[in-house]
Amino acid sequence: MNSNFFADLPALGGDEQFRELLARPGLRIERIVSSGQCSLPGFWYDQADGEWVVVLQGEAKLRFADEMEARHLRAGDILDIAPRRRHRIDWTPAGQHTVWLAVFYRP
Amino acid sequence: MNSNFFADLPALGGDEQFRELLARPGLRIERIVSSGQCSLPGFWYDQADGEWVVVLQGEAKLRFADEMEARHLRAGDILDIAPRRRHRIDWTPAGQHTVWLAVFYRP
Repeated sequence: MNSNFFADLPALGGDEQFRELLARPGLRIERIVSSGQCSLPGFWYDQADGEWVVVLQGEAKLRFADEMEARHLRAGDILDIAPRRRHRIDWTPAGQHTVWLAVFYRP
Repeated sequence: MNSNFFADLPALGGDEQFRELLARPGLRIERIVSSGQCSLPGFWYDQADGEWVVVLQGEAKLRFADEMEARHLRAGDILDIAPRRRHRIDWTPAGQHTVWLAVFYRP
C-alpha cells in the first residue's frame, strides 16, 4: 500500500492543515491544505529556511513584502521563497481545496 | 510570470526528460517526465542520496530489489527511497506522460 499525496483531504471549512511528509536534517517536506484561509492582516511569514513550493490543486494569492502585487498561483505554479523573504497569503478560495507541496530547506 | 511544474512537457515518444527545479547543497529537486521508458534489463538504480518521489501525472511500476513485486504507482503516490536501496522502473505507459517530482537529499 502506497502513501498518496491527495489522500485524506480535510473537510472543507475546517482549519488549514499541515502534514509532514518527510523530515530529515535540514529538510522538511509538507503538504498544506487550505480552503479559504489567508494570513491575518499585517502578518508576514519570515522564515529562516528556504521554501520551495508548488500549488498542486486549487489556487492562491501570495504576496511578497518586496512586491506591490500579490502573485496569483494556479495548479502547477512554483515559487522558491528565499530565507527571510517576507511573504503572506492574501487569499485562497473558500469551498475548495488548495493543496500545496512545500519543501523547506536549510540555507 | 510564475514557473509552472506542468509546463513544457516534452513530445510523446521522445527521451525521458530530467529537469532540475532547485539545486542547493545536499538537495536537488527534479521533474522527471517518462512516456514508455523503463530501466534496461538488469539495471538497478543504486543512489548515495535519499529520494522522496511522488507521481503527479500518469502511472509507473517501480520495483525494489528487496521486494518480489513491482509497486504500481498512480497519480499522487509517494515513495521515500532510502539511500542505497536498489530499485528500477519496470514500466511506464507509452503514449502518455508520467510526471514525477523527485527530491534528492543527502542522508
